[in-house]
This record gives sequence, C-alpha cells and structure tokens, in this order.
Amino acid sequence: MKKAVVLLSGGLDSSTVLYWAIDKGYDCSCLLFDYGQRHKKELKGAAKIASLAGCTYKIVKISLPWATGSLTDKAQKIPYNNKLLTSVHGQSSLPSTYVPGRNTIFISYAVSYAESIGAKTIFIGANAVDYSGYPDCRPRYYGAFDRLLQTLPGKIEIKTPLLKLSKDGIVKLACKLKVPLKHTWSCYGGGNVPCGVCDSCLFRAKGFNLAKIEDPASL
Amino acid sequence: MKKAVVLLSGGLDSSTVLYWAIDKGYDCSCLLFDYGQRHKKELKGAAKIASLAGCTYKIVKISLPWATGSLTDKAQKIPYNNKLLTSVHGQSSLPSTYVPGRNTIFISYAVSYAESIGAKTIFIGANAVDYSGYPDCRPRYYGAFDRLLQTLPGKIEIKTPLLKLSKDGIVKLACKLKVPLKHTWSCYGGGNVPCGVCDSCLFRAKGFNLAKIEDPASL
Repeated sequence: MKKAVVLLSGGLDSSTVLYWAIDKGYDCSCLLFDYGQRHKKELKGAAKIASLAGCTYKIVKISLPWATGSLTDKAQKIPYNNKLLTSVHGQSSLPSTYVPGRNTIFISYAVSYAESIGAKTIFIGANAVDYSGYPDCRPRYYGAFDRLLQTLPGKIEIKTPLLKLSKDGIVKLACKLKVPLKHTWSCYGGGNVPCGVCDSCLFRAKGFNLAKIEDPASL
Repeated sequence: MKKAVVLLSGGLDSSTVLYWAIDKGYDCSCLLFDYGQRHKKELKGAAKIASLAGCTYKIVKISLPWATGSLTDKAQKIPYNNKLLTSVHGQSSLPSTYVPGRNTIFISYAVSYAESIGAKTIFIGANAVDYSGYPDCRPRYYGAFDRLLQTLPGKIEIKTPLLKLSKDGIVKLACKLKVPLKHTWSCYGGGNVPCGVCDSCLFRAKGFNLAKIEDPASL
C-alpha cells in the first residue's frame, strides 16, 4: 500500500480527505496539532475519526508565542456573522482568525514525518472556495510547496483533493465516503457546542443546507 | 530599520550570518530551536551570541518523535572521521545525522514569526560547499522555498549569504565581522568539549586551518 501522511484537524474537510485517501488505497498516518487553538475540542474529534478509520495518529504540540490572532488568543473575540475582524499581526487584510504560518508549519512537520516513515504523499484538506480567505489555502501556495518538495530526495507530493470544491460538494463527498460526520468539529468558538455564528460554522451550515443534508453533529 | 528573523543555531555559520545581517543594517530577531539535538550545548552559545549582538531571541521547543537519526537518538553513534553512517529513516544515501525535514520546519517557524512581527527577511546560515550533504542545504531548495513564500502576502524573502562560500571563506568573513567565535559551538558529539572527529568538527577545523586562523573556541 502507498503510505501517506494526512493532516487531520477533525473538521469536515480534513476528515473527508482522510476517507478520500483511504478510498484511493492509501495507508494513512494522521498528524494532529495542538497549537493553542481555542477550539482544542477538535482534537478529540480528530482522534476519534482517525481511530474509526483504523489509522494511527500522532498529536504534535506546537508553541507559537508570537501569534496574536483571535484563534489562539482567547482574550480576543472571533469574527461572527461575517463581521470581519482583521488581524493584528501585520497582515491587515486577513481575518483575525488567521494563524501566521500555520499551514506551512503543519506541512513541514508532515514532511518530516513522511520522510521518516517513507511516505510519498501528504494530504491536506485545504479549500479555496468556501473559506475564510487565508493565503495558505490557495492553489498557487500548494503548487509552490509541491515544487519545493520536489527539490528534496523524498520527492513527496502534496495532494489537496478538496481545494476547488464548494462546501456542499464536500458535504456530499463526505456522505458518499461514509465519513463519521457526527464526530467532526468545525466551530472556532471554543465552546462545548458549536456557536453557529463563526466563519467556520457558517461555511459548514451553508454546505449542509445547499447539499440538503442534515448535519449529524447538530442532532 | 529593516526587520529580519535569523535562524541561529550557535554554530560558526549561523553566528556569522547574524553578524552579516546586522552589518547590512537589519534589525534581527533570532530563533533558536531545541529539537532534541544531542548537542544541546549549542543553544547556550546561541543565546550568548544573540545577547552579545544586542538581539532578542526566542527558543522554540520542537518534538519530532519519529526522527530516528543519530543527531537526536543518543543510542546511536554519530559518524566520525568521514566514516559515513547512513540514515535509518528511508533516505539511505544521507548521513545518519540528517534530521528529516529539519530546515523546512525551522524556516516554517521563521515564516510564522516574521509574519507576526512584520519582518520581510529570513536569514539562514546554510552552506552547500563544506557541508554534510544534507538536501535542505542546497541552492535549489532555497530558491524553491523563496518562490513558495512569494505566494503569500508577506512576500518574505530567504537570504542565504553563506550558501556558496567555502568554510575558510566563512571563517575569514566571521573574523572580519568580529563574530565572537569563542562562544560558537559546532560539535555534534554532545560532550562538554568538541569531539574533533564528527563531520561538523572536521569542517570547522578545515575552515580555520585553510584560513590560517586559530579557532578561539579551542584555546
């Protein structure tokens, strides 16, 4: 079997990517990150989903003491109902939930892990359609990262099967692949139940509504 | 002043790069990494050098539980006197001291830090002349990483001023820039004094010998 490393947050997108990769015949090892996110609850969902999928997972603890955005700083409010709260970290056109360099760091750990276990593929559930506008979710970023990895002897490729799908397309794909959606967690809010008003909740609700499917996590 | 993030290991090369960047007028913030290296002693040198240079520094702790090379696994021997002990992590043509993905991870943290403080430049003391053959020390890797960063709004550039210098050229440059060489630490061995026979000690000795300069760290 082809070995792969899957970046798994426990959200709708990364969980769907995991099941997509398994469906394509990959032997998946999952990487989860505890980076001080206010919605650390997603890690429980990620662990559950990896286990249900029969995959191993590792949780990597990351410290980003300089990150001042609202996703890691609980003293700040997160944006709600499409109200844009811009970042305080020098990228003023980005939402405050942007974590500087987050996906670059996640992928770099995945590169290290993949090189170590001899995996040739990294999967990430990035999406550039129904998304918060993060620059590290865009096609040209992943194209350039893939070209970077081709300069290394591992020749690892990055696969982003959801990159150009709409959220309702992802929901439909997840249902087709039998992703255990009730265990996925998308909310940024940090509460015990989804807030329903953060970007991530709104995109998720839009996806389920347009797909005309009830969200099992809300039942 | 132009802000920069400098990856500082405390060795000859990265310390020289720090002084080079300061000489060119950069306001440097240093990043040091505790990644389980057997030669953790280098961090003390790095902290001392950053302080002597009047720069702030942060130490980032990294966990790479899958890394099985000799630089992080003290149960293994490190290569000595040019005896090649190849890696056990699937890259069989690499020395066992290669740490999978290390520079990719270091740079990704530097990207996060640089974005956060508004720095536009990352300095790294990579060298592809007198080096151990690590693939993440080669020009095409840095060219591709630089192109990756141009896809992000920060437009951060990676500068590698030592990339094509010989080790004696670096020693001469360090002396010219008044790098406090006696505080630099290069040995991989993990001992209290340099072992003198690991790759890093051999390259350092070669540099000082060819430059006809006495190594202040050996006095």
